[in-house]
Amino acid sequence: MSLVTRGYECAPWELRWRGLAVDQLQRTESTFALSNGHIGLRGTLEEGEPRGLPGTYLNGFYEEHELPYAEAGYGYPEAGQTVVNVTDGKIIRLLVEDEPFDMRYGTAPSHERVLDFRTGTLTRTTEWSSPTGRHVRVRTQRLVSFTQRAVVAIRYEVEPLDGKMQLVLQSDLLANEPIESDSKDPRVAAALQSPLESEFFLADHYRAVLVHQTRRSGLRVAAAMDHQIESPDGLRTDILAEEDLARLSIAVDVPQGKVLRLTKFVGYGWSAQRSVPALRAQVDAALAGALQTGWDGLLAEQRAFLDDFWETADVEIDGDPELQQATRFALFHILQAGARGESRAIPGKGLTGPGYDGHAFWDTESFVLPVLTYSVPEAARDALRWRHSTLPKARERARQLGLRGAAFPWRSINGAECSAYWPAGTAAFHVTADIADAVARYYWATGDAEFERQCGTELLLETARLWMSLGHFDRHGRFRIDGVTGPDEYSAVADNNVYTNLMAQRNFREAAASCERVPEVASLFGVDGTEVAGWRRAAEQMYVPYNEELGVHPQSEGFTEHLDWDFAGTPMENYPLLLNYPYFDLYRKQVVKQADLVLALHLRGDAFTPEQKQRNFAYYEERTVRDSSLSAGTQSVIAAEVGHLDLAYDYLGEAALTDLHDVHNNVRNGLHMASLAGAWMGVVAGFGGMRDHDGKLTFAPRLPPALERIQFRMCFRESRFLVEIHRDDATYRLLSGKPVEIRHHGEPMSVTETATTKPIPPIDPGPPPHQPAGREPTRRDPAQVRRNIAASR
Amino acid sequence: MSLVTRGYECAPWELRWRGLAVDQLQRTESTFALSNGHIGLRGTLEEGEPRGLPGTYLNGFYEEHELPYAEAGYGYPEAGQTVVNVTDGKIIRLLVEDEPFDMRYGTAPSHERVLDFRTGTLTRTTEWSSPTGRHVRVRTQRLVSFTQRAVVAIRYEVEPLDGKMQLVLQSDLLANEPIESDSKDPRVAAALQSPLESEFFLADHYRAVLVHQTRRSGLRVAAAMDHQIESPDGLRTDILAEEDLARLSIAVDVPQGKVLRLTKFVGYGWSAQRSVPALRAQVDAALAGALQTGWDGLLAEQRAFLDDFWETADVEIDGDPELQQATRFALFHILQAGARGESRAIPGKGLTGPGYDGHAFWDTESFVLPVLTYSVPEAARDALRWRHSTLPKARERARQLGLRGAAFPWRSINGAECSAYWPAGTAAFHVTADIADAVARYYWATGDAEFERQCGTELLLETARLWMSLGHFDRHGRFRIDGVTGPDEYSAVADNNVYTNLMAQRNFREAAASCERVPEVASLFGVDGTEVAGWRRAAEQMYVPYNEELGVHPQSEGFTEHLDWDFAGTPMENYPLLLNYPYFDLYRKQVVKQADLVLALHLRGDAFTPEQKQRNFAYYEERTVRDSSLSAGTQSVIAAEVGHLDLAYDYLGEAALTDLHDVHNNVRNGLHMASLAGAWMGVVAGFGGMRDHDGKLTFAPRLPPALERIQFRMCFRESRFLVEIHRDDATYRLLSGKPVEIRHHGEPMSVTETATTKPIPPIDPGPPPHQPAGREPTRRDPAQVRRNIAASR
Repeated sequence: MSLVTRGYECAPWELRWRGLAVDQLQRTESTFALSNGHIGLRGTLEEGEPRGLPGTYLNGFYEEHELPYAEAGYGYPEAGQTVVNVTDGKIIRLLVEDEPFDMRYGTAPSHERVLDFRTGTLTRTTEWSSPTGRHVRVRTQRLVSFTQRAVVAIRYEVEPLDGKMQLVLQSDLLANEPIESDSKDPRVAAALQSPLESEFFLADHYRAVLVHQTRRSGLRVAAAMDHQIESPDGLRTDILAEEDLARLSIAVDVPQGKVLRLTKFVGYGWSAQRSVPALRAQVDAALAGALQTGWDGLLAEQRAFLDDFWETADVEIDGDPELQQATRFALFHILQAGARGESRAIPGKGLTGPGYDGHAFWDTESFVLPVLTYSVPEAARDALRWRHSTLPKARERARQLGLRGAAFPWRSINGAECSAYWPAGTAAFHVTADIADAVARYYWATGDAEFERQCGTELLLETARLWMSLGHFDRHGRFRIDGVTGPDEYSAVADNNVYTNLMAQRNFREAAASCERVPEVASLFGVDGTEVAGWRRAAEQMYVPYNEELGVHPQSEGFTEHLDWDFAGTPMENYPLLLNYPYFDLYRKQVVKQADLVLALHLRGDAFTPEQKQRNFAYYEERTVRDSSLSAGTQSVIAAEVGHLDLAYDYLGEAALTDLHDVHNNVRNGLHMASLAGAWMGVVAGFGGMRDHDGKLTFAPRLPPALERIQFRMCFRESRFLVEIHRDDATYRLLSGKPVEIRHHGEPMSVTETATTKPIPPIDPGPPPHQPAGREPTRRDPAQVRRNIAASR
Repeated sequence: MSLVTRGYECAPWELRWRGLAVDQLQRTESTFALSNGHIGLRGTLEEGEPRGLPGTYLNGFYEEHELPYAEAGYGYPEAGQTVVNVTDGKIIRLLVEDEPFDMRYGTAPSHERVLDFRTGTLTRTTEWSSPTGRHVRVRTQRLVSFTQRAVVAIRYEVEPLDGKMQLVLQSDLLANEPIESDSKDPRVAAALQSPLESEFFLADHYRAVLVHQTRRSGLRVAAAMDHQIESPDGLRTDILAEEDLARLSIAVDVPQGKVLRLTKFVGYGWSAQRSVPALRAQVDAALAGALQTGWDGLLAEQRAFLDDFWETADVEIDGDPELQQATRFALFHILQAGARGESRAIPGKGLTGPGYDGHAFWDTESFVLPVLTYSVPEAARDALRWRHSTLPKARERARQLGLRGAAFPWRSINGAECSAYWPAGTAAFHVTADIADAVARYYWATGDAEFERQCGTELLLETARLWMSLGHFDRHGRFRIDGVTGPDEYSAVADNNVYTNLMAQRNFREAAASCERVPEVASLFGVDGTEVAGWRRAAEQMYVPYNEELGVHPQSEGFTEHLDWDFAGTPMENYPLLLNYPYFDLYRKQVVKQADLVLALHLRGDAFTPEQKQRNFAYYEERTVRDSSLSAGTQSVIAAEVGHLDLAYDYLGEAALTDLHDVHNNVRNGLHMASLAGAWMGVVAGFGGMRDHDGKLTFAPRLPPALERIQFRMCFRESRFLVEIHRDDATYRLLSGKPVEIRHHGEPMSVTETATTKPIPPIDPGPPPHQPAGREPTRRDPAQVRRNIAASR
């Protein structure tokens, strides 16, 4: 019965929750969030209450606050940024015969919400009896338009079920909504307390607009709403606007069998520079477009957009319906996070909640962009354009740190470093190589020469310059990168982190290649042959420490000499370890929060032999506790590569279900985009064995025993193709575009419109690796899952 | 003329400053501070203004404030502590014919202040003409009694120089004096804004008392004053007390040739536990004692106390009068810092200013206590008793960090960790071995069995336990200590810091030896033979990394592989580097703030060969920038040992003159006790070559070319002796007690009442080492110094 207790019903193309569980609202508000990458709405009930955490976010819109230090240091960032809950346009309140429609009172014989991955809408159907016994049915549907990025639309229908009744609807724009801050920092909490100052408000007929500005960051936001009403005769409406509220009130007597239908269109806009009139004009224009398209038109556009997406990117999993659902859920939310960001960041939580203060991290480039690169490449391009737009800040940061090139921030909304703890922030320079890697991947996957000229080459050369100034040739001629932090947050500030060094090596090579492709761009930035030769030499001489005695790579120099963590003496309630042990203790011992060397085995698999991969994977499995959501997907990929297919399947389940099962108990603050991306990664790079080193697509598919079939789709250089994996063979077929050259288990082949089937060679993975006691992934048993689903029906 | 511009006149037994320089007041307030280790008074003018920074401190008295973190972590200390300027009893205001005596107005034909190292008093003589032209001479003398630790006494004399005049004196106790905080942290500044809340005040006849309590730390302080007046007839007095002020006013007409003389006695007391009546009684009792002894009696006691001190501890330097003065100044202030602390800490600044928030660091045990151990051993014992009294907090801290034994704080007033930046705080575990080293040194130097039973063994065994839990035996059987910070603050969180490992080795050995000496104490704490054997094994197997290729010890593992700092590219104005470069950059390169490996060469000289010392010293000289005041003394010691006597002399000059020349431009916040101790160290351990490994006293004296003679005195196991160094030989003579067994340049001998003269063997130091460009110590030229002195007279 686990599926029922977790609340979500299992279905291939939707997420459905029946009944109301007030204490679960916060997490369903995250999973039911709608977004197009520009606007994000949490899945709150239209009536506003009960609620967990309301949230309406505009990508890039933040308030600033001071970062306090008891002991300050040179180069510490002084200003933090935090995402702001902007003017809430989701709210539509209902009064039934003078009684507020509130699900905490009266009774609800039925109530369900459905997030539909193909229509891109959240619908809700509620039958409700008021405390005085009047029955109504409420149906709502909302969307954040993929095609008109400034537009939200909501349809709200009420139907009396027990005779004629007076219904009143109040449709609001509400600014400075009271929220409870999770932040322990009083400065952040204060910054979020009524963050918006009113600059303009107006209401007329069915339309109203509010314009506000943040106090410190000085960003301006406008929200406007307009309405269409279908109702029985006798309608009375009223509209008001004040500083933080605009409200259209509708009152009408509705007979049984009739429906009161309100369609609400909301337009959003923000700017750091544009004036109040300009922003007001912008949201008015958004409304004009939405009204012209109309509700049915918006629905149709949404469906068409999603049809195209699924045509390119769908994943089919036969044999595990829960994993099927979770994988589509993951793809849907990744699309929502990235689709229309348009030169804004993709935050770690997308626009689904206030977690991580709304900041973007390396997660974007290393986890989310690989998915988008092969499914919605324009979205990957736009996210990289954001990084490009922040180059002036990254150059300034590099200068401040005494470095050359560009030092991208560990966490940020506007491109300025916001990390207040440098050993796990500024020192994690790998973010810069991760961005370069994403640029190179995008270039190889699309051949987008225009992007390369405008952004790509510049990003690659400035990041290569960073590494050149960050590392040095030692007296033995090796290129070392000392004192940096790799992906694993239970280690910090170590020498020659293998992941970092190998990613910097790729950065050098890709920068050299790009500068040679477009020398005129390179020379614009003063790159000459000597500089390129230096990058190539650093790449060749890159130091990659290896422990001959143990036959494994140390995560960083010295790591394998450190004391092993006392896993046997660590009680389960002490996880995540960072809440119960000091950093100093974690840093100095062999305990790994998240894939680090194992991530290198994935992203730089070309730098390891198969035997090294097997030994390294086994070594780090024993020491990895997965206190981070950034790990299971990668562990799934490498487990599959070295042949531990059951284990890979377990890890894939964990990655895909991170948010639906609330594995880290924090989904209330938003979804884990990187973990959702890990689901795709586990399927495509794990069981599909897809790798893209140096722009060459290779596959090494293998099905785990529990599954019957996996099929996934990709796009590559304007071609679309699918890969279908069975137990003993895999089939490749081109869907559109030119044939694609790939390798299947090492053998070169073309993917053409004629399906080609290739056998899958056997693999002997050796004995299964061990995990720290109690930190094994949940064993995934699809037969049990199917029984649970059957029982819950 | 440098001596004149620096303001101090050169004299062997005093520090004298003529004239008033308002912009120099802050630094002379520090150098002219009086203290007995319990009470500290900055050298402000009696009339309160003009002033730099007033300051009256009681050892251990602090206010608490929150420590803010933008990104918090497990085990971060939440409360900070900061020393409080308590009720000011120094103030005596004068009005001459209704005109306030204020040196910023009128004229002062003469004005001088003298700190006398033998009388232990600060005297001041000022002739002043008021703006209206009336002439007076003011003479004041003040002392903080070494013999009556709660007592301050001030004599204030005014003499009309141009006929009879009305004089008014106002003698104050002033609480919550307005001060400008140097702190950039608004929470610290707020905590220091009116930190005291009045609990009681009373005035009667010539006596008054104020009792206050701090708001957060809840500590209570009482200050009381009483007066004796000698004056012509016609005296009128008045006394008042209110919450933050008590004031005795005296008015009298004084004829020319007569003197108005006020003697003010102030008693101080504080407690975390005692009630208002109890504290009031305590300060009344202090006053009763002071009045019974009387002014002349207090002066006589002070002189006798200091005569005894100089008899035991004086240092004579022939050939460099400025260094002679500076060395006595240093000894005098170290005595002041430690004499009567009595189970309180010796802060980094003593009680001379609010620098470092009044915290005590490892400076005490590693720099100050060696001086006290061989000059005022009771003071060393009392400082170690303070550490012992904080063992419960240190044990709790160790538990919190997942360790055994005791983890002493990096910085504290009350024993609780106050360091808000763990890589340079909590991770610097060497403080714990430094304490153990000081305990062992004190034991060997005194044979104090009572202290060992009461405190010493417990301190040694709990610190040994810390190391046992902090380190581990690796798979090659070596004992490693990973992820800690050594003395050098330009490196952090590294493996196997040589200094730390060698000090931990000594800690293990001394703990084992102590537990074997007093097994009944050891067994009280559950120490058995197995535990002691474990300590001995860890000591034997202690890993000390060595770079065979370079023939030097890396400061920590990997250090010698790091990039050398670009000294040539570092402009002079970028020092101290920590204000202009991020920690991450400093930590990852070969740049050393302060002696670290070189300190190991001194304190664990028994672990290195002479050749290693020579090579190591040369290697680290090239990389040490001395951005810390904790370095020059140690560099002087090792320079002397390896035979670079001129360089040793330069470093000795820098250490001894740190505060008088205000080398670090921050003496306004208080004196650098460790640097003052470095002056003694440079003489005794440097040119005297004194070492005390395992309690065996050895000497290897050598005179630098510029000096004619050095003589120093020491006490050891209740014997006192002196060492006199000439160019070619050294003479040892017992002053009191039993003969002392020592070695002279390796040769065993007894120091007896008969002076024994031994030849000094020659040494070939090889080529002089280099320092980073621009960071060489100032070349010391005593001939030039003597010319300057002559010219300034």
